[in-house]
Amino acid sequence: MLKVAVLISGRGSNLQALIDACARDDFPATIVRVISNKADAYGLVRAQNAGLDTAVVNHKDFPDRESFEDALHTELSNAGVEFICLAGFMRILNSDFVNRWRDRMLNIHPSLLPAFKGLHTHERVLEAGVGFTGCTVHFVRPEMDDGPIVTQAAVAVNPHEDASRLAERVLLLEHLIYPEALRLVAEGRVKVVGSKAEIKEATYSNTWLVNPEPMIE
Amino acid sequence: MLKVAVLISGRGSNLQALIDACARDDFPATIVRVISNKADAYGLVRAQNAGLDTAVVNHKDFPDRESFEDALHTELSNAGVEFICLAGFMRILNSDFVNRWRDRMLNIHPSLLPAFKGLHTHERVLEAGVGFTGCTVHFVRPEMDDGPIVTQAAVAVNPHEDASRLAERVLLLEHLIYPEALRLVAEGRVKVVGSKAEIKEATYSNTWLVNPEPMIE
Repeated sequence: MLKVAVLISGRGSNLQALIDACARDDFPATIVRVISNKADAYGLVRAQNAGLDTAVVNHKDFPDRESFEDALHTELSNAGVEFICLAGFMRILNSDFVNRWRDRMLNIHPSLLPAFKGLHTHERVLEAGVGFTGCTVHFVRPEMDDGPIVTQAAVAVNPHEDASRLAERVLLLEHLIYPEALRLVAEGRVKVVGSKAEIKEATYSNTWLVNPEPMIE
Repeated sequence: MLKVAVLISGRGSNLQALIDACARDDFPATIVRVISNKADAYGLVRAQNAGLDTAVVNHKDFPDRESFEDALHTELSNAGVEFICLAGFMRILNSDFVNRWRDRMLNIHPSLLPAFKGLHTHERVLEAGVGFTGCTVHFVRPEMDDGPIVTQAAVAVNPHEDASRLAERVLLLEHLIYPEALRLVAEGRVKVVGSKAEIKEATYSNTWLVNPEPMIE
């Protein structure tokens, strides 16, 4: 069983998806610690409801980013954490921390990376008028929203919906692919080769989506 | 019937898709001229086989880009062309020419724009390890591979395939969406508003794709 920490800052809906997945008998990972940088993050309640150990490491309690990340690292080491899942963790991590956890830390981002890195992705997706968006689970690198891609999910954009409705639809896909990506990693089926994550025995769809859909006359 | 010119430089497989679409009784556009900047482009043969008027405007016959584009414009005007489809036309067009045909010129690009603008897209897609790629029909703007998006099609990338196989799969989608985009335009259902193309009465899929697909246990 891969021992996982989930790092959060807020409501923790992706955390919930990971909790639910880890509760399944055949899931190859277990959450040994949920850590928030905010004491009032609702995700902590979710973790406690699931009987998980939690910790708060508040960045405001530390003079600089280095000491904050040292405290984070100590907490992770004490809990015997082998792997990190960032799930709405809203602090930028220094390259020292990121490199200590290289290829042992995943993040989820609500766009089809490399498109639409950064914040307010859904607003920017709608503004750009693109036909598709989605979400990406990737290994973390020092550059923001960069790193080998493990899983992506794509959905057609309806330009008549607003950003919050689109966010809701993409979030459902996030809840689907984050546990799936963690499972692939925990089963030892993901190997980072250069800038890419190679997935052993993955299946790849040959279907496609068109947006807008051709009209049926 | 919208009077269309198709501009090519090579084999013209997207031209063929447009020829086939325009041959259908209910299609609202007709190709009045196929123009190539290369005399030996195989697309010219396809056009002649379909009984279409062709012209060669060779950029090498002109001292500069301006005079080449003036000749191109004259050819288009003489043929009564109302709308242009670029289909593998390998010359960069100056902003003067582009602005004369603003919102009356489409291009197709083999990626999910704004990702992977430029050449060698499939090689770069595979190198980046992304889960999805596709193709985009967009109005032409002076910036390369930029402009309001009319249609996109997405397909899951199989990282075990090579660029030429991926290109082949994307090309099938190109042949599907380019005629569809032209039809939408010719039916007056596409309106450019700011940086976006709004499509009247389009249908938008709620389905999604995941890559790699979850394994069925």
